Amino acid sequence: MTIEQERANAELNPSTEQAAREQAAREQALVDTVLGSFGESPNARLKEVMKAVVRHVHAAAREVRLTEAEWNTMIAFLTETGQTCTDTRQEFILLSDVLGLSMQVIGMNNPSVANATEATVFGPFFVEGSPRIELGQDMSFGAKGEPCWVTGSVRDVHGKPVPRARIEVWEADEDGQYDVQYGDDRVAARAHLFADDSGEFRFWGMTPTPYPIPHDGPVGRMLSAVGRSPMRASHLHFMVTAPGLRRLVTHIFVDGDEIGWKDAVFGVKESLIKAFERHPSGPTPDGRVVNGSWSDVTFDIVLAPGT
Amino acid sequence: MTIEQERANAELNPSTEQAAREQAAREQALVDTVLGSFGESPNARLKEVMKAVVRHVHAAAREVRLTEAEWNTMIAFLTETGQTCTDTRQEFILLSDVLGLSMQVIGMNNPSVANATEATVFGPFFVEGSPRIELGQDMSFGAKGEPCWVTGSVRDVHGKPVPRARIEVWEADEDGQYDVQYGDDRVAARAHLFADDSGEFRFWGMTPTPYPIPHDGPVGRMLSAVGRSPMRASHLHFMVTAPGLRRLVTHIFVDGDEIGWKDAVFGVKESLIKAFERHPSGPTPDGRVVNGSWSDVTFDIVLAPGT
Ligand SMILES: [Fe+2]
Ligand SMILES: [Fe+2]
Repeated sequence: MTIEQERANAELNPSTEQAAREQAAREQALVDTVLGSFGESPNARLKEVMKAVVRHVHAAAREVRLTEAEWNTMIAFLTETGQTCTDTRQEFILLSDVLGLSMQVIGMNNPSVANATEATVFGPFFVEGSPRIELGQDMSFGAKGEPCWVTGSVRDVHGKPVPRARIEVWEADEDGQYDVQYGDDRVAARAHLFADDSGEFRFWGMTPTPYPIPHDGPVGRMLSAVGRSPMRASHLHFMVTAPGLRRLVTHIFVDGDEIGWKDAVFGVKESLIKAFERHPSGPTPDGRVVNGSWSDVTFDIVLAPGT
Repeated sequence: MTIEQERANAELNPSTEQAAREQAAREQALVDTVLGSFGESPNARLKEVMKAVVRHVHAAAREVRLTEAEWNTMIAFLTETGQTCTDTRQEFILLSDVLGLSMQVIGMNNPSVANATEATVFGPFFVEGSPRIELGQDMSFGAKGEPCWVTGSVRDVHGKPVPRARIEVWEADEDGQYDVQYGDDRVAARAHLFADDSGEFRFWGMTPTPYPIPHDGPVGRMLSAVGRSPMRASHLHFMVTAPGLRRLVTHIFVDGDEIGWKDAVFGVKESLIKAFERHPSGPTPDGRVVNGSWSDVTFDIVLAPGT
């Protein structure tokens, strides 16, 4: 039917238009009733959040005219997502990540301040209680990967060094796996260290390589169904803390990376892309003997004011 | 700070306003990037649905300025909701029900047609393979409750009787429990029967009483945190099917019920509220001897065209 025919039909048949108006009014009345049900909430903030959830859940369902079969699929998807979670796997965080919600929440809660280093996703692979290393030591602890000499500084937005800032670093090995994904008790490619009295730091890590987020569950199947890749841009995780300054959770990304902006969780920011310079086997900055190639990178960190 | 002071401040400090604009632009740019990631989807419908989900999830989070702590609470809530689901309990359906989403989906997919009987929530307690009863028999199978004589007819929108329409009925007992909630293998207060050749039906059931939806899980705790009751209005479930007509899933509700419009899942519709007439012990329509009081109700069903 052409648009003209549809219009002619609607004019000949005003009851169709009226039925559509009545249907829309009934749908909106239901939304209003549900919103009204939160009127007695003793928790004002929870009420505000739940009302926003109701408005947007109903709006989304109405916009796409969700069918009963699709609603069933959605219930099954959410149920399986919950049941895929274990002590070492968080499928709902994965879902939040691939919908860009995690980055949105980070962006809202870490607004840009002057020249402060930008934040990005925390990810599911941080583990409390990492081993401490001294400046210049190796955080790989035997994890496979090309050695990478990482140096940098920690300063505040006025350029003042932040002495003894605490720096947590963690990353995947060259097979794309974090230590915790092996299912044994190994601890590797994660550590914490402290900047020196001038806010400078240096350590050996590994040149980051791309890896897929866990994609054998419902979130991975959803990505595949919409033609999206589960690959993350190559990155090295940092969490930097110092008294009186805002905690920074971020990564550095590899300039020229094959995944780059196609990162499955939308974590890449221009300012976080760093040049990792590759070197053939040979002398290293601290005299360490390396078999084969190595790289180096500099990451100068600026912490925003805060607590 | 008063509104006037805030305005004066903003004028003195245009960089604040500019920062807010830049922040909003960054947030919108992220939404656009996420929407763009579905561009290669081979499934046009899934792409449409996922893009609506992304738009509304981000809009809700941005409107309420969701904090990182609240995001963590949300992840934990969804995870627990999934992990509360078992073969006999569906906590995500409960969540959909108490947000009014289930009713919205039913309303969109069962639009009002002439005088056809309105649909309402399916609920989680229907079970395939209910026992068949003959016209006039009792569907309670020993479940506790005041006997209720239910009569009615099944017709199409033109008033033509629908002979031998299949009618499924199920309800909670007077303790507010469905048979499946007892955890033994009992089958009670559920049955199917067929209308006669004139589309008439009659059976013994129980006068419906209010009951709470399962409220010992995360959904029940959410309801309690926002001051909402888990009680459902008293009701008797019907599912009516006949060839060439739209399947009807509905309840009848009890006029004068103590819960009524405060139904936890927003299932009540004016047209579905029926007068259940109470009678003292004494003669019944079919001569059955009843110990104590009983009730009766009439439900004349009209099926919409469809398949
Ligand atoms: Fe990572
Ligand atoms: Fe029910």
